[in-house]
Amino acid sequence: MPTLKQIIEESDTAQGRAFDLVIQALIVLSLVSFSVETLPNLLPALANSLRWFEVFCVGVFTLEYIGRVIVATPRKSYVFSFFGLIDLAAILPFYLSTGIDLRTLRAFRLLRLFRILKLARYSSAARRFHDALRIAREEIVLFATAALIVLYLAAVGIYYFERDAQPEHFGSIFQSLWWAVATLTTVGYGDVYPVTVGGKLFTFAVLLVGLGFVSVPAGLVAAALGKARQLEAARDNENPE
Amino acid sequence: MPTLKQIIEESDTAQGRAFDLVIQALIVLSLVSFSVETLPNLLPALANSLRWFEVFCVGVFTLEYIGRVIVATPRKSYVFSFFGLIDLAAILPFYLSTGIDLRTLRAFRLLRLFRILKLARYSSAARRFHDALRIAREEIVLFATAALIVLYLAAVGIYYFERDAQPEHFGSIFQSLWWAVATLTTVGYGDVYPVTVGGKLFTFAVLLVGLGFVSVPAGLVAAALGKARQLEAARDNENPE
Amino acid sequence: MPTLKQIIEESDTAQGRAFDLVIQALIVLSLVSFSVETLPNLLPALANSLRWFEVFCVGVFTLEYIGRVIVATPRKSYVFSFFGLIDLAAILPFYLSTGIDLRTLRAFRLLRLFRILKLARYSSAARRFHDALRIAREEIVLFATAALIVLYLAAVGIYYFERDAQPEHFGSIFQSLWWAVATLTTVGYGDVYPVTVGGKLFTFAVLLVGLGFVSVPAGLVAAALGKARQLEAARDNENPE
Amino acid sequence: MPTLKQIIEESDTAQGRAFDLVIQALIVLSLVSFSVETLPNLLPALANSLRWFEVFCVGVFTLEYIGRVIVATPRKSYVFSFFGLIDLAAILPFYLSTGIDLRTLRAFRLLRLFRILKLARYSSAARRFHDALRIAREEIVLFATAALIVLYLAAVGIYYFERDAQPEHFGSIFQSLWWAVATLTTVGYGDVYPVTVGGKLFTFAVLLVGLGFVSVPAGLVAAALGKARQLEAARDNENPE
Repeated sequence: MPTLKQIIEESDTAQGRAFDLVIQALIVLSLVSFSVETLPNLLPALANSLRWFEVFCVGVFTLEYIGRVIVATPRKSYVFSFFGLIDLAAILPFYLSTGIDLRTLRAFRLLRLFRILKLARYSSAARRFHDALRIAREEIVLFATAALIVLYLAAVGIYYFERDAQPEHFGSIFQSLWWAVATLTTVGYGDVYPVTVGGKLFTFAVLLVGLGFVSVPAGLVAAALGKARQLEAARDNENPE
Repeated sequence: MPTLKQIIEESDTAQGRAFDLVIQALIVLSLVSFSVETLPNLLPALANSLRWFEVFCVGVFTLEYIGRVIVATPRKSYVFSFFGLIDLAAILPFYLSTGIDLRTLRAFRLLRLFRILKLARYSSAARRFHDALRIAREEIVLFATAALIVLYLAAVGIYYFERDAQPEHFGSIFQSLWWAVATLTTVGYGDVYPVTVGGKLFTFAVLLVGLGFVSVPAGLVAAALGKARQLEAARDNENPE
Repeated sequence: MPTLKQIIEESDTAQGRAFDLVIQALIVLSLVSFSVETLPNLLPALANSLRWFEVFCVGVFTLEYIGRVIVATPRKSYVFSFFGLIDLAAILPFYLSTGIDLRTLRAFRLLRLFRILKLARYSSAARRFHDALRIAREEIVLFATAALIVLYLAAVGIYYFERDAQPEHFGSIFQSLWWAVATLTTVGYGDVYPVTVGGKLFTFAVLLVGLGFVSVPAGLVAAALGKARQLEAARDNENPE
Repeated sequence: MPTLKQIIEESDTAQGRAFDLVIQALIVLSLVSFSVETLPNLLPALANSLRWFEVFCVGVFTLEYIGRVIVATPRKSYVFSFFGLIDLAAILPFYLSTGIDLRTLRAFRLLRLFRILKLARYSSAARRFHDALRIAREEIVLFATAALIVLYLAAVGIYYFERDAQPEHFGSIFQSLWWAVATLTTVGYGDVYPVTVGGKLFTFAVLLVGLGFVSVPAGLVAAALGKARQLEAARDNENPE
């Protein structure tokens, strides 16, 4: 029979795995419930059920939090850790919002999203992203800056070509930036696009040159993830979980 | 003169290759026929021809199925194999639908698409995809989950920025998810896009950060395909077909 | 003083380089002229000038063709070579169209585009693409087929989800294929997009799975180009031009 | 106490780092100010403040320019260097425009954008891009040409398929080029798209073949950046800054 500490903190016993699964399932279900609550014209009966389910979730997460505080040695090591703060942030909004005017409650609801970070505890993807960002942080900052400069120059250019023809869409550099973002990421919603010959030629030139710049940060993240995987594999060989 | 078993199961004789080619051509033609049947205002004569062609195809596939059952040693090894079940699924809908009310026939028609899987027997691409998925399964699941979380957070964010300005497009998190999918995959249909300044800034931030996440699973598949090719080359060197 | 053969066939003398440059410039100019001719409401004077420029270009290309025939040893080696046929195809439409009714002339005009292939003679990019396709031909065919199958299945799926809601856009599998192409290449014009909940969920699933498949052939071409460059570098080391 | 030369030209003293940070912050702020000035319906008070801020920026940049000229040994080495010319270009438009009619002032304002190049002095990304372009220059030119040819052929093709159905969008090859750019970069604004069956089939073919070509130059830039990083790492090992 495993101890409470083993059940809560480890996952190599049947009870430990069951505990993890229940918590994970409740996190996902509480996010689904959060999403369903945003549906317009929700039936009152369903809205009521969702409210009770939310109370239930917070109850379980509170018990989990208390449990983790009790079994941690020393206690401070959990309370002030990254996941300790996340676990608190996942339940605190509920307790705060109950004593508050209903009108400001909406913003508190959004704080429930911190629960998604609780999932990170169980995910090796989160750790790998963390490693990847650490490996490529300097480079990502460097080329994200370069991408921002390219986006800015594209916005200034299209502003000068299109402001007279479409003042409602390219009336300032800030509006033009929206075009630059939608174009250079190749999303291309189609709400704003150049109509003058000059603007189209400029778009042509910007796309041929700029696609490389804007896609570099995403490529750096992907490459860093590959390296993080190798690091993880090497680390697992040394001290397997 | 090759035996029936050699013709059906192998492709290193002229007759075996001819048999394979006929079956493959019939699969493709039956898919074309399936597509043509969906055209509105089809001429009755053409519709009739397509129905007879379908009967012919099912006849040939049935003969092929019987043939494969006969030559397999032991017979069970084929009947309960992956391709045995696929071959059955490719003809069964026809026989079932003939005894059924015409109204429910449409759903059965869709089952004819299982025939496309019959093509996989002749395709080394299918085997390679299979190998690639096996190699990268754990990673793909990991980062597909991460991509889903990024999509979810993007949807929640845009919901808070745009719900008041465009309640018909961003009226709930589920509607906002549609925007998140179309945007982060860079498809950008243009049916929904942010109009508020906050929503546009949020889209900007989400695109710069999120493109990397959503493109990672596709990149992993591509990388795994490269590895699968090396594995296949190594396997072919050991026991060439 | 270099011989005529050296001027025409080689580019290591000043005259040879000048000859090459003049021919390349004329090809590009004749393509520009071809494009300008398509402008509606062209001034008659300009249209006339373009016609004379076309006569001039064909004259020079004819002289070039005769010259290449004369200096080739043996002559057949040029006349029936790839570039010999291309050079003929670049001038023949002009001579044929002069003896033909003006109405059918338009189609012949399009044949002038063969001239763009003349540029390939001077381009190491063309040779590299050729090498790349040879290296990866089998793979590209394999995964282009897989991409086609994914596109087909996406089209069939969306057809079943959207045909009732949007019969004008998803009225048959062929119309749905257009949606599948625009979506899975992430072009996303926005002329057709799913409106039903089922169709949107299906699009979600198809995008997460299918992006990898459709981008694989392009990725294979890029990877093969890298290999072709290495081959070329190795070849240049052995026998430098 | 560091000398003026150390403060201006180096960044390994506290004063030198402060000097650099102030200049960088002023560059970014003057770009923000430049963007805000383009907002329509700007309050007169704000417009006035921005004008004074611009005077202040130019004053600081002028002092910086004079300082750099004074400390440079020999002086010519700075005045005629790349960054010397950039620093001059960042202040000259202001002095020129004050003596000029207000109507032509707008074009001079645009020249202020040269300031963004001043940022390059502090950025290792700029150096790396420079190295990357040097490494892959020949290749990028080669495949950018190939991409242009693919775009041109796509435009000619769609022109012949769509000009009768949509003369307002595909009325000439130049208009069709705009479609080709928006499609092959997968931006897909949706302002122009084929409507004929032939045009859609052609788009299908062009997308399957052409995506690889158009994405190659961007991929070459990304690959060259990776090599430039290795070169930089090697160079930093030899003589660390």
